[in-house]
Amino acid sequence: MPKHQSAGAGGSTLLGIEERRTRTAGASSALDRWLTRRILAESGQPPLTIELWDGTRIEPEPPPADIVARVEIRDRRTLYGLLVNTDVAFGDALSADRIRVHGDLVTLLETIYRSADAAIPRDSWKRRVTAWLNRPRRNSRSGSKSNIHHHYDIGNDFYRLWLDQEMVYTCAYYPREDATLEEAQQAKMDHVCRKLELRPGQHVVEAGCGWGALAIHMARDYGVHVRAFNISHEQIRYARKRAAALGLDGQVEFVEDDYRTVEGKYDAFVSVGMLEHVGVDNYRALGEVAARVLKSDGRGLIHSIGRNAPAPNNPWIERRIFPGSYPPSLSEMSVIFEPQEFSVLDIENLRLHYARTCRAWLERFETAADRVEAMYDSDFVRAWRLYLAGSVAAFTTGSLQLFQVVFAPGESNEVPMTRDHVYPRN
Amino acid sequence: MPKHQSAGAGGSTLLGIEERRTRTAGASSALDRWLTRRILAESGQPPLTIELWDGTRIEPEPPPADIVARVEIRDRRTLYGLLVNTDVAFGDALSADRIRVHGDLVTLLETIYRSADAAIPRDSWKRRVTAWLNRPRRNSRSGSKSNIHHHYDIGNDFYRLWLDQEMVYTCAYYPREDATLEEAQQAKMDHVCRKLELRPGQHVVEAGCGWGALAIHMARDYGVHVRAFNISHEQIRYARKRAAALGLDGQVEFVEDDYRTVEGKYDAFVSVGMLEHVGVDNYRALGEVAARVLKSDGRGLIHSIGRNAPAPNNPWIERRIFPGSYPPSLSEMSVIFEPQEFSVLDIENLRLHYARTCRAWLERFETAADRVEAMYDSDFVRAWRLYLAGSVAAFTTGSLQLFQVVFAPGESNEVPMTRDHVYPRN
Repeated sequence: MPKHQSAGAGGSTLLGIEERRTRTAGASSALDRWLTRRILAESGQPPLTIELWDGTRIEPEPPPADIVARVEIRDRRTLYGLLVNTDVAFGDALSADRIRVHGDLVTLLETIYRSADAAIPRDSWKRRVTAWLNRPRRNSRSGSKSNIHHHYDIGNDFYRLWLDQEMVYTCAYYPREDATLEEAQQAKMDHVCRKLELRPGQHVVEAGCGWGALAIHMARDYGVHVRAFNISHEQIRYARKRAAALGLDGQVEFVEDDYRTVEGKYDAFVSVGMLEHVGVDNYRALGEVAARVLKSDGRGLIHSIGRNAPAPNNPWIERRIFPGSYPPSLSEMSVIFEPQEFSVLDIENLRLHYARTCRAWLERFETAADRVEAMYDSDFVRAWRLYLAGSVAAFTTGSLQLFQVVFAPGESNEVPMTRDHVYPRN
Repeated sequence: MPKHQSAGAGGSTLLGIEERRTRTAGASSALDRWLTRRILAESGQPPLTIELWDGTRIEPEPPPADIVARVEIRDRRTLYGLLVNTDVAFGDALSADRIRVHGDLVTLLETIYRSADAAIPRDSWKRRVTAWLNRPRRNSRSGSKSNIHHHYDIGNDFYRLWLDQEMVYTCAYYPREDATLEEAQQAKMDHVCRKLELRPGQHVVEAGCGWGALAIHMARDYGVHVRAFNISHEQIRYARKRAAALGLDGQVEFVEDDYRTVEGKYDAFVSVGMLEHVGVDNYRALGEVAARVLKSDGRGLIHSIGRNAPAPNNPWIERRIFPGSYPPSLSEMSVIFEPQEFSVLDIENLRLHYARTCRAWLERFETAADRVEAMYDSDFVRAWRLYLAGSVAAFTTGSLQLFQVVFAPGESNEVPMTRDHVYPRN
C-alpha cells in the first residue's frame, strides 16, 4: 500500500497524537453522531464512512453501494471544527493527524468535490456567503511579496525533490500518452514558444518566471532575448545561477522585482502560472502593463489556472498553501484583455494535462516523503500531500481548469492565419 | 477600373440623381464648408477629400500626404444628414447615390474605421450615448422571425450569384494562401467537424443552419444524424430539396422553427453564424438550451462574429442589412457558458479568414452586379456593395473578430487531451 493511502502513519508525531486522543477519550454522544450525519448530508451524502474516536462508524443515508474511503475523526474538537469552516478544518486536521484517511486520498477528494458540487445550488445564498468569507487576500506590491514568499521561498531543495529536473512548477503538456513529466514540461515550453511564434533576436518579457526554466528555454532554443520578473528571492537566485552556468546570462536577465515595474518594448509578453497570484482587482493593471510593453506587432500569452464560472478558491489552499491566490473564470480574465482592446487569438484548456502533472508530482512527492519529513515535519508532509492530491482531484473533476490565452494588440494584422505553426507536420 | 471603385455610376437611376442635383444646386456656403471640416475633425481627420456639390474640395488639416479617396457629397441635405447620425446617413446616401466614392471603397472604409477608432476615446461619453442610441432590436421569437426574414429571405437566386456553390454564408477557413472560396468553405466545415470529433452514428443538433450546407456535410462526410433548425422559410425549403436530391433526407431533418424549441439529447450542439442574431439578452437561454440537449459526454461549437470589447453594432448595418444583429465580445459570450458551468475547451479567432471570405464575396458580387441590378435596383446594388466592402474593412481593421468556441459539460472528462485531431499529420 503506498504510503499516502494511510495519511499520517509517520512516527515522529505519534506521541503528540496519542496525547490528543487521550484528552478527548470517551464515547461519542448522540449529539456527536447527529452532527456527523449533518456533515454528510450537507456534503451531498458522499459514499464514505466516517469513523469517530470511539470506533462508531457512520455512513450516508441511504447507504451507498460503493464506499470509497473511511475518514477517521480522532477527537471531538475536530468534529466540531468541521461544522464551522469545513474545508479549512478538514485540511488542518488532516495535516495535524487529527483526521486520518483510510483509502485512496485522491479518490476520496474527487468524491467530495463531485458530491459537494451537486449538493449546493449554483446561485445559492450559501455559495455567496462562502465566497465572501473566503475572499482572497489582496495583492498590493508588499502584499504580493509576502504572499509569494510564503509559498515559493520554502526552499529550492524541497521543490527539487518532486518537480522535474528543470524545476517547472506549472501545468505540463503531454503530447503523447507515454510522455514522462520531464518530456511533458519540455513540450509545454515548446508549445508556448510555438504559440508565440518566437524568432531569433526578438525580445521577450516574462512576468513571473519561477526558477527560470521557460526564460532559459526561450533563449537557448529560440534565440530570443528575455527579461524575466519574479519577486521570489530564492527563485531568482537559482535562475541566475543556472543561466550563468549555461552561458546564457548575456541573453537572459532575471529581475527581482514586481512585473508592474517593467519598462521598454517587447515582441512578446509571456506569463505562465503567475495570474493565479495576481488577484482580479489587479487584472486591469496587468492588461495595461502588457499593452504598454508590447510592440504593435507583438503577441502575448497568459497561462493560468481557472474556473468554468466564478467561484471562491478553496479556503484551506488559500490560507495554508497559496495566500492571495484566486483562479479566475474566462469572464473574469477578460478584464485583462477587453479594456485594452486586445484581440484574443487562441484559448486552449489544458485541464486534463494539469491533472496528470499533479499526479506525477504527487507520486514523486510520496517517493521523497521521508526526506521531506526530515527537512520539515510530518504535519508539513501531510499538508502538502493533501494539497497535491486535492489538486489532482480538482482538475480531474473539473473544479479547476487551465487556460492558455494568446492575444495581440487589436490593430495588429501580424497574427497567424491558422494554428498550423503550433502543430508542425514534421 | 473595377466597377466598385466608382460606386453608383450605373445608368438606370441617373435621371433621378440629376433631379436631386438640380434641386440643391447652388454654391456651397461658408457654413457648409465649416460643417464639412467639422465632420472631418470628428472622424479623426482621415486622409480623404470631401467634394461638395459645387465642386469645392475640402481636405483634413494639416493636409495628409496620401489621400486615399474622394467622397463626393451631392447635395446640402446629405451633408446635414451626416451631422446627425453619421453612419446611417453615410450608408443611406451612398445607397441612394447622393454620395459617390471615387477611389477604392474598401480602402476608404478601412481608413474611416481606423481613423474613427483613434479619434474617440474608449470610455468616452460619446461612445456610450452612441451605443445606447444604436442598441439592436430585441429578438423575441416573433421579432427574430421578422428580423431574419428581412435578410435571409431576399431570395436564394440573389445569394447564389455570389456565394460558393453550396451557399455557405459564414466565415470560410483558408488552409492555404491559394485556396479558393469553394475550397475554403469545405475546409471550414471539416474544421468544425474535426473540432467536434464527430463519429458515425452520432446525433447532432444545429441551431441556425442557413441553406443546410454544414448539416449535409456532417451527414454525408461524417455519417452523423442531424436535426437542423432555421426560421428562414426560403433557406429551409432550399436545404430540404438539396438533402432529398442527395438521398440524405433520412439522415438530416430540417426543422422550420426557433432553435429554442429543440428537444431530445445529442452528442453535439453546433451553431455557425447564428449567435450574431440572438442578442445578448438571450444568451443565457441559449446556454440553457445547449445544456438541456447535450449528453453528458457531448460537445458544443459556437461560431460567431465578435468584438475585442463590447461596442455597438454599426447602426447602418443593424438598420438596413441585419436588423437585430449584435457581435458580442468574449465576456458577453461568457453568459452562454458560465451559468451552465460549461467548460470552454478551445477558442480560435478566424478574423483574417473572414476578411478574405468577404473579399471573395465582394469580388463575385461585383461580377454579378448587373444581374443584381436587374433583379432589384441600383440602390440595392450600392447598399450591398457598401455592406460587403464595409465587412472586409471591419475584419481587416480589427473592428470585428470571428470566434469559434468549443465547449463541453463541465463534468465531462470525454474531452480531447490535445488539438492534434484538428491538425492531422496525414
